[in-house]
Parts: sequence; structure tokens; C-alpha cells
Amino acid sequence: MVAEPFPSDSADTYAGDPVFDLHRGGKIEVTSSVKVADADDLSKAYTPGVARVCTAIAEDPSLVRRYTWKSNVVAVVTDGTAVLGLGDIGPDASLPVMEGKALLFKEFGGVDSVPIALDCTDVDEFVETVVRMAPSFGGINLEDISAPRCFEIERRLKERLDIPVFHDDQHGTAVVVLAALRNALRLTGKSISDIRVVISGAGAAGVACARILLQAGVSDLAVVDSKGVLSQDRADLNPVKLSLAKDTGVPSGRLVDALDGADVFLGVSGGTVPEEAIARMAPGAMIFALANPNPEVHPDIAHRYAAVVATGRSDFPNQINNVLAFPGIFRGAFDVNASRITEGMKLAAADALANLISPEDLAADYIIPSPFDPRVAPAVAKAVAAAADTDNVSRP
Amino acid sequence: MVAEPFPSDSADTYAGDPVFDLHRGGKIEVTSSVKVADADDLSKAYTPGVARVCTAIAEDPSLVRRYTWKSNVVAVVTDGTAVLGLGDIGPDASLPVMEGKALLFKEFGGVDSVPIALDCTDVDEFVETVVRMAPSFGGINLEDISAPRCFEIERRLKERLDIPVFHDDQHGTAVVVLAALRNALRLTGKSISDIRVVISGAGAAGVACARILLQAGVSDLAVVDSKGVLSQDRADLNPVKLSLAKDTGVPSGRLVDALDGADVFLGVSGGTVPEEAIARMAPGAMIFALANPNPEVHPDIAHRYAAVVATGRSDFPNQINNVLAFPGIFRGAFDVNASRITEGMKLAAADALANLISPEDLAADYIIPSPFDPRVAPAVAKAVAAAADTDNVSRP
Repeated sequence: MVAEPFPSDSADTYAGDPVFDLHRGGKIEVTSSVKVADADDLSKAYTPGVARVCTAIAEDPSLVRRYTWKSNVVAVVTDGTAVLGLGDIGPDASLPVMEGKALLFKEFGGVDSVPIALDCTDVDEFVETVVRMAPSFGGINLEDISAPRCFEIERRLKERLDIPVFHDDQHGTAVVVLAALRNALRLTGKSISDIRVVISGAGAAGVACARILLQAGVSDLAVVDSKGVLSQDRADLNPVKLSLAKDTGVPSGRLVDALDGADVFLGVSGGTVPEEAIARMAPGAMIFALANPNPEVHPDIAHRYAAVVATGRSDFPNQINNVLAFPGIFRGAFDVNASRITEGMKLAAADALANLISPEDLAADYIIPSPFDPRVAPAVAKAVAAAADTDNVSRP
Repeated sequence: MVAEPFPSDSADTYAGDPVFDLHRGGKIEVTSSVKVADADDLSKAYTPGVARVCTAIAEDPSLVRRYTWKSNVVAVVTDGTAVLGLGDIGPDASLPVMEGKALLFKEFGGVDSVPIALDCTDVDEFVETVVRMAPSFGGINLEDISAPRCFEIERRLKERLDIPVFHDDQHGTAVVVLAALRNALRLTGKSISDIRVVISGAGAAGVACARILLQAGVSDLAVVDSKGVLSQDRADLNPVKLSLAKDTGVPSGRLVDALDGADVFLGVSGGTVPEEAIARMAPGAMIFALANPNPEVHPDIAHRYAAVVATGRSDFPNQINNVLAFPGIFRGAFDVNASRITEGMKLAAADALANLISPEDLAADYIIPSPFDPRVAPAVAKAVAAAADTDNVSRP
């Protein structure tokens, strides 16, 4: 075996920077899980032996699951149009994030994962491309695709494919938010059916969080975009926002007004919320300010008015981090050969995540487990697999 | 990390079969090349640290080579239309071969590789799909695509992409055949410009072998398909075959007639050649009968009439095996960031391969190195990289 290539460090602006040093040469590799030490190994792993495995799969397509890596590999697919908070930086520049995701899939979920950054932004082309490559993968994790295109892409791929399709920016966030909210409610003694929730942000994460909260029993919910509360009387809403406005049924208004008496503020917008608005929330308020690196409300300010505070940052307590969800969700889906990720599987993942914190341990600064808690992915996977059975999407 | 899924063995028809046992769960995996043991690691490998790497690449796209795995990863892309000798068995059933290829890329060349089996057989769709996914990869290895579609697909992808595109069934075979021929000529004392060569088979391998032999100086060359010698007076030839008929300039005829007095028989057809035809070859004949598992001429028969015999099988001497070429070719191309694989790079690969056998070691049963000779990939890679420099396709 030849040494891996390693670009020279001469003229490397970033040499010595620990983040760039870690990324040098990439963060993942493909390795063999069988040995090929001699001609006998080669004749089994490759020709002529492999022909018998191909023939067996041609005769019984279900065997592809048993005799290839397909059943354990997810494509992390993006078009680079909404990368982190950086926006539309294109497929090349998105690759470090996709590789990072692949790394986390393996480290936390034992799931193999391949970054696929597509050079096409047309929804039809994106969908067709993923459908064509789908035979190679056991699941599709959509990533960093701009809204509202991401909703249409996910909806159509779910229709076309019989493998799990999961837009993590939507549902990964929603699952972890719901888990954190369940524990925050336990702490504050409030009931999910009684609370008033305000979500700032109606992009991928905002819409998915709204949907899972409605599913989970929230009945008083306002979703706010840059123009104000999503309400049916607004003429500027895209179909996804209009549908949400209908389902929430709240009147139009400004964010600050919606926050008056609210129990929960969920920030997934990247904007900032003035302290005066936060000050108007109900007693025992819960503030989840998830924008990175600058939360919508700084935790120091949030704590003045809220009983529970969470952010997206690792340097504050209660980090809402998607890595708590996606590795275990795909692990569970793959373990039972699920054909899709249902609403029930997402709700089960959130419950499993919340329940990892015992009543004795539950505290205002500990409503969600650490990503490094080794119980996380197994617990999520187990719950997701069971829910797949219940929802009749698991397969032999 | 959760255990990998492992389908139950109950009702497994193939349990206990060593080939199937080796393939169970697949032959490759994606592993992390950096560790993520704590929150600090996570903040460097993923958010927020990764955002700085993305931004740097967005500002200077050449950095994608240094800070992602792109510069070392090749997509092994097929549509499953011509898998081994099995024919059009479709993308699912092709996966064990593509995984095997990925395994060999890594084991022999240190090249990361991802199997991509596409569910589309239309040439336009295939090309567009690969172009769209190309940002994710440093090279494209086309595999097991039926002729003549494979020629058009490769030609168009080479035009559209600035990364190496290489149809291994064509060029990998051609490189190893030329290497073996060079050493066979040394043994028999014949000159490449004087020999008469007959190629049986005008598919991917046959066409590419013909082209590299013409490049290397063969002037008397007949290519034969199931209807006879490719000649300009035939009305049934596709454009690729017609072009070859023009460039070889030989009259029409049958395979057995073409073999009369021929120095070299190269079989890449899967058919069989009668002993009587072989018996009519010139003294000091060379027979390369590469069909697998059944050579066009059995080596025992070939040895009655030929000075040198090679096959595609590992259980006879002189195995013509593509694994001698493709790992080193991509290794060399990647090492110098080549924008394409030129004719010069292929010829250099063949020479490097041939020259690994010293004059003292050269023998009728040793004209080509073993795939397990550790000198092979480094020698091929070095020669390919140097030829890329000569051909001005290497980049900083």
C-alpha cells in the first residue's frame, strides 16, 4: 500500500491552526473490513468469487442487504445552499461539514456515511440525482439545503424511495428540542397542552420544530419570521409557511407581542431578541436560544427571566446538538431495515433522549444529555427501532 | 458507538459458503481519521470550528484539496449494465463488485473509494448525474458499463470534468495487456512494429486494447467481433468500431483466417477459439486468453502452439489482472493533482509494470508481476505522476 497523499505545507496560510491541522487530508477514509492478503482472498473478495454474490442478489434483491454494505451506509447529501450559518457557499465549501457529519455518524452510531455534495440547485435535478444514486445507499440524510426548497426535496424523495430520507436540519433539531422541552416541562411543572410557545425562525429548523411540537400536543404556538407571526391573513407566505399559519391559527403580530406571557421561546433564526421582550414572558419561562455562535438571547440575560435556558453552544449547559439524534435514529432505522422515518419514530427518539435523565439528576442546567453520554445512541436507536415496528415500516 | 447491524443468519441459504461469509455485512466501511473524544474535538471537527474551514474554501476553492478527503477519493460508478461476464444485472446486484473495487483501491493504492451504482441507463442522465456529484470526488472510475455506451459516457465526462475519469474495463485492461506484451516481446525477440496482432472482442476492453497497441507502435492489427474482422466495408459497425476499422485498415474476414500467421492473439470476448485456428499462428506466438472463468483457449492447448501464454485467472501463470493498474494509476494521478489521465500516463503505467521484471527473472511463465508484489502500485504511481508532469496535466 502506498502512502496517502499529503499536500505540502509550503505556503499554507493556515498551518499551525489547530482546526485546520485537524482537517488536513480530510477527516474520514474508506477502509476494508475484510483482508486481502493473498490470491485466495482476492478470488473470494473480487473475481471470480464475487460473481456468485452478484448472481445471488440478481435472483433475490433482498440479499443486497446481507451481502453488501448498503444496509449500513447513509449518503449525506447537500447542494451547499444553506451551510451552517454561512449560507449558499456551494458544494465544494460544504464538504468539511458533510465529512464532519460522516465522522459523527460512524463515531456515535456505527453508521457508515458518504458525503455527497451536488453541483445542482434545481429541485427537480436534485431529486432525480438522488433517486438515481439511491441503489448504493441504505438511507439519505439531507443536509444544509435552503428553505423552502428543502421541504419539497424531502417530500418528493420520501415519495420516490423506499429507504429512510431525513433532513437533519429539520428533524434532528426538532427531536432534540422536543426532548429538552419535555425535561424543562418536568422541571417547571407545566403541561405541554397548556403552554404558549413562540418560535423565532420559519426555515428548516423552525418549521420542523413547530410540526413536532404540534404533534406532541402543543396547542398555543406562534411561529415568527422576519416579517412577524405567521398568520393566515398574510399574503407573503410560501405554501409551507401558509400551511403552518393555518395549523397554528394565531393572529398576526410582532415577535415582541407574541412573547407577552409566553412560556417557551425557541430561537432558530440567528436574529436577536431584545431583553425587554424576554422580560414579558410568563413566570417559569423556558428559553432555547439555538443560534450559533450568537444565541438570540445571551444565556446571562436569559437567566434573569427564565427558569430553564438552553443554547446550541457547547460552552454553556444544555446544548441542543443534533448529534444527540441523527446517529441513533439511523442506527435504529437500519437495525430494523425501516423503509422510512415516521413521525412516531421521531417522537420516540425525543422521549428516549429525555428519559435518559433520571428525576434525581434532572436540573435546570441538565435537561439534555451530553453528546458524549454513551447511552444516547443505543437508547435512541432502540426506541426508533421499536417505533418502526409499531408503525409497520420495519422489514425482515 | 453502537454495534454494526448484522442480519440474522436464520434462513440464510448461503451460510457456511466461504465466499458469501466474506461478503456478509459488506467489505468496506467509512472510518474517521481524526478522533472525537470530547467537546473540544467536536468543536474543531464539527461546529463551530468547521465553519472556518468552509469559509476558507469558499474564498479559495483550491483549499478543498488540502482540507477535505476529496483529493484522495474516487467514485466507482456503474449502472450495472455489463457486470463481469454476467451482463446487465442492474445496480443492486453490481454492488459486490463495486465494493470489491473500493476495497482494492484502498488496499493496493491507499486510495479511498466509494461505490456508486446508478439506477439510470440513459447516457445523458448518467453523464449529468456524475457531473452533479463530481464536487464530492477527486476522480471517477467508471466500471462495468456496457459498450458502446461506455465510450460515449467516458468521452463526455472527460470533456465536462477537470478530474481524472477512467473506465477501468477499457484502460486498466489495456495497460496490463501492453505491459505483458512488452515482456512477451522481449522473451520472443520480436519487435512491436513487426508483429501481427489479432484481438477477439470489440467491447470496452477490446477497443481500448486496440487503441493502446496502436499508440504503442503495433501496425498490423485486426480486431474481430462476433461477425468477423472490423473492416471499413462492413455496414453493421457502430461509430466506435468503424473508427477502429479505419485506423487498422485491415480487410474483412473471419477470426480463423486473421489468426493465420499472427504473432499475438488477445482474447477479450468470452468466446472460444478452435485449436485448429491457434495452430495456424506464427512460430513464437503469444496467446493472451483473458476470458473468465473460461479462457478463449485453454492454457494447456495454447502451450502447444505458443511461446508465451497469459490468462485472466489466478490459478495459471501470467494473470492479466486490472488490479495491477488502477490503484497505482489513481495513486499517481492524485499525488500530482492531475486533471485527467492522458495516453502518456497509461503508456507510462504499462512500461513501469513491465520493467518491474528484470531481464534475469523474465520467463515464459513470468511476464507480469503478481498483484501482491508490493513494488507494483508505487512503481505505477511514480511513472504516472511523472507522465502527468510531462503531459502538463499535473497541478499544484
